[in-house]
Amino acid sequence: MLKKEQNDLLTQTGPGTPMGDLFRRYWLPVLLKEELPEPGCEPVRVQLLSERMIAIRDTEGNYGLMDEFCAHRGVSLWFGRHEPGGIRCPYHGWKYRTDGQCVEVPSEPEGSKLCDRIKLKAYPLVERGDILWTYMGPPEMQPPLPEFEFAMVPSSQRFTSKRIQESNWLQALEGGIDSSHVSWLHRDSLNSDPLFKGAAGNQYNLQDMRPVFEVVDSDDGLFVGVRRNAGPDKYYWRVTPWIVPYFTMVPPRGDHPIHGHFWVPIDDEHCWTWSFDYHARRDLTEHEVQAMRDGKGIHVKYVPGTFIPMQNKANNYLIDRQAQREGRTYSGVDGIGMQDASLQESMGPIQDRTREFLTSTDNGIVMMRRRLMRVIKEMQEGVEPPALQPEAHHVRSAAVVIGRDEDFRVAAKDALRVQPDRGHASV
Amino acid sequence: MLKKEQNDLLTQTGPGTPMGDLFRRYWLPVLLKEELPEPGCEPVRVQLLSERMIAIRDTEGNYGLMDEFCAHRGVSLWFGRHEPGGIRCPYHGWKYRTDGQCVEVPSEPEGSKLCDRIKLKAYPLVERGDILWTYMGPPEMQPPLPEFEFAMVPSSQRFTSKRIQESNWLQALEGGIDSSHVSWLHRDSLNSDPLFKGAAGNQYNLQDMRPVFEVVDSDDGLFVGVRRNAGPDKYYWRVTPWIVPYFTMVPPRGDHPIHGHFWVPIDDEHCWTWSFDYHARRDLTEHEVQAMRDGKGIHVKYVPGTFIPMQNKANNYLIDRQAQREGRTYSGVDGIGMQDASLQESMGPIQDRTREFLTSTDNGIVMMRRRLMRVIKEMQEGVEPPALQPEAHHVRSAAVVIGRDEDFRVAAKDALRVQPDRGHASV
Amino acid sequence: MLKKEQNDLLTQTGPGTPMGDLFRRYWLPVLLKEELPEPGCEPVRVQLLSERMIAIRDTEGNYGLMDEFCAHRGVSLWFGRHEPGGIRCPYHGWKYRTDGQCVEVPSEPEGSKLCDRIKLKAYPLVERGDILWTYMGPPEMQPPLPEFEFAMVPSSQRFTSKRIQESNWLQALEGGIDSSHVSWLHRDSLNSDPLFKGAAGNQYNLQDMRPVFEVVDSDDGLFVGVRRNAGPDKYYWRVTPWIVPYFTMVPPRGDHPIHGHFWVPIDDEHCWTWSFDYHARRDLTEHEVQAMRDGKGIHVKYVPGTFIPMQNKANNYLIDRQAQREGRTYSGVDGIGMQDASLQESMGPIQDRTREFLTSTDNGIVMMRRRLMRVIKEMQEGVEPPALQPEAHHVRSAAVVIGRDEDFRVAAKDALRVQPDRGHASV
Repeated sequence: MLKKEQNDLLTQTGPGTPMGDLFRRYWLPVLLKEELPEPGCEPVRVQLLSERMIAIRDTEGNYGLMDEFCAHRGVSLWFGRHEPGGIRCPYHGWKYRTDGQCVEVPSEPEGSKLCDRIKLKAYPLVERGDILWTYMGPPEMQPPLPEFEFAMVPSSQRFTSKRIQESNWLQALEGGIDSSHVSWLHRDSLNSDPLFKGAAGNQYNLQDMRPVFEVVDSDDGLFVGVRRNAGPDKYYWRVTPWIVPYFTMVPPRGDHPIHGHFWVPIDDEHCWTWSFDYHARRDLTEHEVQAMRDGKGIHVKYVPGTFIPMQNKANNYLIDRQAQREGRTYSGVDGIGMQDASLQESMGPIQDRTREFLTSTDNGIVMMRRRLMRVIKEMQEGVEPPALQPEAHHVRSAAVVIGRDEDFRVAAKDALRVQPDRGHASV
Repeated sequence: MLKKEQNDLLTQTGPGTPMGDLFRRYWLPVLLKEELPEPGCEPVRVQLLSERMIAIRDTEGNYGLMDEFCAHRGVSLWFGRHEPGGIRCPYHGWKYRTDGQCVEVPSEPEGSKLCDRIKLKAYPLVERGDILWTYMGPPEMQPPLPEFEFAMVPSSQRFTSKRIQESNWLQALEGGIDSSHVSWLHRDSLNSDPLFKGAAGNQYNLQDMRPVFEVVDSDDGLFVGVRRNAGPDKYYWRVTPWIVPYFTMVPPRGDHPIHGHFWVPIDDEHCWTWSFDYHARRDLTEHEVQAMRDGKGIHVKYVPGTFIPMQNKANNYLIDRQAQREGRTYSGVDGIGMQDASLQESMGPIQDRTREFLTSTDNGIVMMRRRLMRVIKEMQEGVEPPALQPEAHHVRSAAVVIGRDEDFRVAAKDALRVQPDRGHASV
Repeated sequence: MLKKEQNDLLTQTGPGTPMGDLFRRYWLPVLLKEELPEPGCEPVRVQLLSERMIAIRDTEGNYGLMDEFCAHRGVSLWFGRHEPGGIRCPYHGWKYRTDGQCVEVPSEPEGSKLCDRIKLKAYPLVERGDILWTYMGPPEMQPPLPEFEFAMVPSSQRFTSKRIQESNWLQALEGGIDSSHVSWLHRDSLNSDPLFKGAAGNQYNLQDMRPVFEVVDSDDGLFVGVRRNAGPDKYYWRVTPWIVPYFTMVPPRGDHPIHGHFWVPIDDEHCWTWSFDYHARRDLTEHEVQAMRDGKGIHVKYVPGTFIPMQNKANNYLIDRQAQREGRTYSGVDGIGMQDASLQESMGPIQDRTREFLTSTDNGIVMMRRRLMRVIKEMQEGVEPPALQPEAHHVRSAAVVIGRDEDFRVAAKDALRVQPDRGHASV
């Protein structure tokens, strides 16, 4: 349970808020590369951390992310026209480079230097791993580009999607580090989803409904360890890393591709859920990619032309009570991604955490919140927040069977770091 | 005309408001029995007095009405799954009985007593007269079940419907005790509606457009008496009872079924209008029931799958100006129910009663408001409000022709009480 | 750039606001005459300056504009029924004349004088130039009817339309006095729109992209003069008059009909854009009228049955990026009217003028705002605002080629006044 002030602290990310300041220290995923497919293509309206911007790709192919509104009279540059060297506001022809610098105010006399003084707030927009990333914080504090493994492998080994979620980012993240709901909400999908079924390890998930949590602080966030019985003297450990502030990875299942998420605030009542699947050692198969495109696994189907899930709040997520009754899906909602989103959105736009009742299996959530509060406090005192350096991103989730007396941190130490020559550790 | 504070007092019914406290002393209709048709059926989202709840019927057939949100992490239990002995939250499997008691937190070790301490706010949900009723007040003050006559006769003698009204409850109730608008708004329906036309008594309504009101306090609310001329030395009296806080009955016409309403707040800008028809002495005919299903009389047609009227604010109630011009309907809106709702909703979500101008025919409204204010004040001083005991519900409306020098309270005394062996008094 | 208080001052026009008080001193266009086509026709809901009203035409053909809500219980008189001598509220039959006077409270005894005391707030509604106008200010200050030239010529010489704009009135007006955007936003329409193309003078617009502004105060508003080169020793001057507070006229092109606008607040986030075309000396041709009906020139196509443009915010104005890329339309939005509206609406419901950056070509806007602030201040000190007398409306826009050393105010003095025996001055 949080006090109201604590809940506000962690859920508000607009300009000038403490949590917003923290988010502005990290590279954030903005767009799929395919959303700006070619030089001079249509601008994309972007909202992140409650700031309204446009993302563009100029006629030379350079990316830019800047304030949505022309400095002159406030017109949306989404209507802008690409010309060599910049995008022009269609109202009076003011021209901007991708870095927000105004390079022409056409009504001014030749030789005028007026435009030198005009610069829109702009942020870098950089491609890595088929994703366009930005950094919205103080330029002098900009860290190196992120090196999450899924973004560093060849495109053929990766599939990434994103969807709009109608809730604050925090309750979405809390779903991502909450391993204990899998045995309930997703239990039937483990047996039916083409990307999940038949994987080694599923049997432990389904047999032991009383997982024991062991959550430990790491340098860069948490390791949420969950153990289930695996025979008389063994435990099946699933370890979920959380990297401050927004990155989580689901533990692997057999040799299936593994997956994870970013949880990125749009405004305080909406967030982007980024979902990636990758395999560290091989290309994804055609069959796997097709399933991901079809909204299987942690991906979803969209309302055409949007990133709004086809199953959404307005249509009760197309809940199928017959399927629920017959145990084909536990909640009646189809698909792992929308099973999570439907329940997280049902908590309301911003969950009222003054009314919750947490138990020992919520330890991951409790420790994540405490860590965020501590990081915010330290940042305000001048301490550098964690996970800024790429080294921090070289993390993996893992699923291992070890002796009951073993410490997962020790036994899975290597498995929890990227090993370029080895795949994920999974039973 | 009310002062703003008075208008607020009578229109606000959320938790902790004085009018909300009063409503919480009475049994309120929640659902038609058919909305929870069988054990283990789909939960129904309910909002009453600004509280969000779900109504359920467990696998044993028990009814329950409880807080919509799981005590654990705030997920909506509307997504819950019925299992023997309770409904489970689909997120982590917490299980609740129909009385809101948590009976299992599956992640807890066997033998854990944790769940004993967890109980959702819940209210009784009890069937009577094919309606499910609740009581949302202090348990120690719970009165006996209501005994309104329509709910006590066999099902075959009764038809009940409900519709969402896009306005505060009070302006809806005020329509229900305002007998004088019938001669205007509904005048054409008296001659055309299959459930109204041809009834003895209609001629007086249509001939005398200057009804005289005599409103008298009763033990449990009001009797709104309205007299019209009925020959040289007689008056035609129509008497509408209002029972505190929410029940009204329309006076009978000939041997037609008689009808009435409950007006129940959803939140401060929406209410449920419950409409019932019944006959104290005989089954409704097939023809009558079919007309009611077709939205005739005080009933309405719905947007399929909802209780939203097909004619509604968004479509200007399908007003037909040609019909208005030709006098087929006085306002151009079809149907008695929607004639009322269209005008009541047109006042705005909460009528601004600081700007009204009441006349003598609004006496019923004036006295109702005064009574409510007095009851609220007395309740706050510890006096028991009226109409809690079932005896108070044994009331009837009546329509009688009596001598001009007779007092309707005396002459119609018996007619205004339920007489098990006699039908309604009607000319 | 404005301070927040200044922006509020100029953009808020509800009852009791200073800018609202100023607007209430002028005749405002309310409806096209055809919206109340015949005696006893359907009432029209009207909102102006944040006041909700209905406009009616009684069975005798008299026009009326009054408070939307019945004085009795607050029902919307939009549902009213026309009867000889007035419109009746359909709830209880209260009857009102077009001047808002209640003339019957039918439930009152014969001879009752009650209704004499009941009068709805009402304003005159007067036809001139196929438009219905109202005056919402103090009756004793009501000026003579307006005499804008377009409204005084025969109907055959005029075409008027209106559309809802999803923005505050001020940013719409600012587009109307901003001559400099034509060379950018509308440049392609000058060559393609049937009502613009081929006009003498267009060549200057398209050749000289650095117009020089000379804005001068007039008795009744401003003359916004804009000069472009027209050969070695000549200037092409286009002069846009603005009449306080809401009237602008576009300078003529060849012998084409000329056009202009009223910008009238609905509420603080919506306004009516009135668009007229007329020719002072001849009938409009069939071809011209058809083009205007088809949404060419400054007119627009509608969502059928409404005054909502078919291209609107919800559908991104049907932007055509291919047309933008190929230079068929500069912003990709089709039609001069919607090119303006799309960008003005993109600024947000009320433009945040604390963040703008004005340059010399915005002088017209700067001087208009200063003038409005001065007029408001003087009005509060008891000085009569400008442009109340019809003489002030006898203004024309003009487009002339004159010597580089000539003052346009002198050289075009006659051209900027209505000359009954002469057409507009245009090259």
